[in-house]
Amino acid sequence: MTKISVFIVNIGTELLIGRTLNGNLLWLGSRIYSLGGEVFASLTVHDKRDQIASALNYAFSSPANIIITTGGLGPTYDDITMDSVAEWLGKKLVLNEDALNFMMKLRRPVTEESKKAYEKMASLPEGSTPLFNFVGAAPGAMIVFMGKRLFVLPGVPNEMRDMFERYVEPFIGYSVSRGIVTRVEGIYEAQISPLITRLTENFPTVYIKSHPSMEYGKSVLRIEAWTQDSSVEIMKIYDELRSFVVTHGGKIFLEKQG
Amino acid sequence: MTKISVFIVNIGTELLIGRTLNGNLLWLGSRIYSLGGEVFASLTVHDKRDQIASALNYAFSSPANIIITTGGLGPTYDDITMDSVAEWLGKKLVLNEDALNFMMKLRRPVTEESKKAYEKMASLPEGSTPLFNFVGAAPGAMIVFMGKRLFVLPGVPNEMRDMFERYVEPFIGYSVSRGIVTRVEGIYEAQISPLITRLTENFPTVYIKSHPSMEYGKSVLRIEAWTQDSSVEIMKIYDELRSFVVTHGGKIFLEKQG
Repeated sequence: MTKISVFIVNIGTELLIGRTLNGNLLWLGSRIYSLGGEVFASLTVHDKRDQIASALNYAFSSPANIIITTGGLGPTYDDITMDSVAEWLGKKLVLNEDALNFMMKLRRPVTEESKKAYEKMASLPEGSTPLFNFVGAAPGAMIVFMGKRLFVLPGVPNEMRDMFERYVEPFIGYSVSRGIVTRVEGIYEAQISPLITRLTENFPTVYIKSHPSMEYGKSVLRIEAWTQDSSVEIMKIYDELRSFVVTHGGKIFLEKQG
Repeated sequence: MTKISVFIVNIGTELLIGRTLNGNLLWLGSRIYSLGGEVFASLTVHDKRDQIASALNYAFSSPANIIITTGGLGPTYDDITMDSVAEWLGKKLVLNEDALNFMMKLRRPVTEESKKAYEKMASLPEGSTPLFNFVGAAPGAMIVFMGKRLFVLPGVPNEMRDMFERYVEPFIGYSVSRGIVTRVEGIYEAQISPLITRLTENFPTVYIKSHPSMEYGKSVLRIEAWTQDSSVEIMKIYDELRSFVVTHGGKIFLEKQG
């Protein structure tokens, strides 16, 4: 099985002015990784037509098989993702009756004032497949283009997650990632880095990484090891770390194993 | 004064596999915005040579004046940012004695084992200015190239922040952003979106955005308005929102004003 690679384009000025943490990327990264795929890269841009087009150019020229955009599908003035995607594809935006009807069924009686907003949200690039929104309002869209599959998803986290599980997950495939997180005290990163280098060479299918930090004034080093390779005995890595730390006068704790 | 525009390249596999939230982007976005600059876009890539090069191509072809990379400066095997940047610039990595001496002064007596790791960290692209790390170990680098200024910063948040304040901030300039955050109940986003559109047109220098969410089973809408334009009376926007919400049977609260 070829590994599925995903390029994520997060659209939203709020992500670039320090208003909102990109929790969507965290969730998608974790989910895609645990399904056996990988996030190739992630690009965050403003709700601006030329930036969205430039991001799609970059994503479509990458090796990723799947491209996901999040954000900019709502009813307001600056929600221009569908329009920008359509323009980039060279397609018209057309009102999708299925998407409109699905949305209407879930909402309160619609006023004259808000009807336009619902019609705006249900207007999708010509030829795309509507992705129904079971949680909020705005539908998404799926488009096959240049041999890749583009999913246009909402930015609201619970809407995005539901749509990802329904529509994107089946294209990613399944496997399981396992790993350990250790906490090391009394050892500097530079001291243990030769061992980490050696472990990385000996276990090429394992992602091993050290993170130094300060906790209550004390230097702490967290070392993680994660793999999707079921033939790896991950505890062998822990044993090697433990033996190094102990013989160098440090302490090691196994914080997480799963 | 021309507005300074910053392109951020976050380097680190941990950001793409759901292990780490990109708090550095949040902090930098907030900081740069409140200094009167803007983050043009942000690209997150793996610790891989070709991806770092491709990200630098994309960043240097954008309108941004300043490019910041974060991450990949540590002593371990997969910390390849300096090396990748040097290769992309067509420069050699050379041991910077000032950077090495500064780092040594702050650390414990160095063992033979860890000396190599310190020398690796102090090796910077030829011709670059070292950025001393007052918090952790690895130095950063500043390079002027193709009319833009590239800052190579560490990924560890407190090290990155200290270095940003010392070395990057003076290039950004100062102003103040002000704004409000309101919480609206009993009004749907689609209902109020025509008003938001009108406000956006009437106040072109203000960033106005609505965020729907569910809180304890109740539909809530947060509407924010932020500006760097000191001539705007931001409370006029609140008054218009308030008057709409009240006449349509909803409730509005001013959660934040600053």
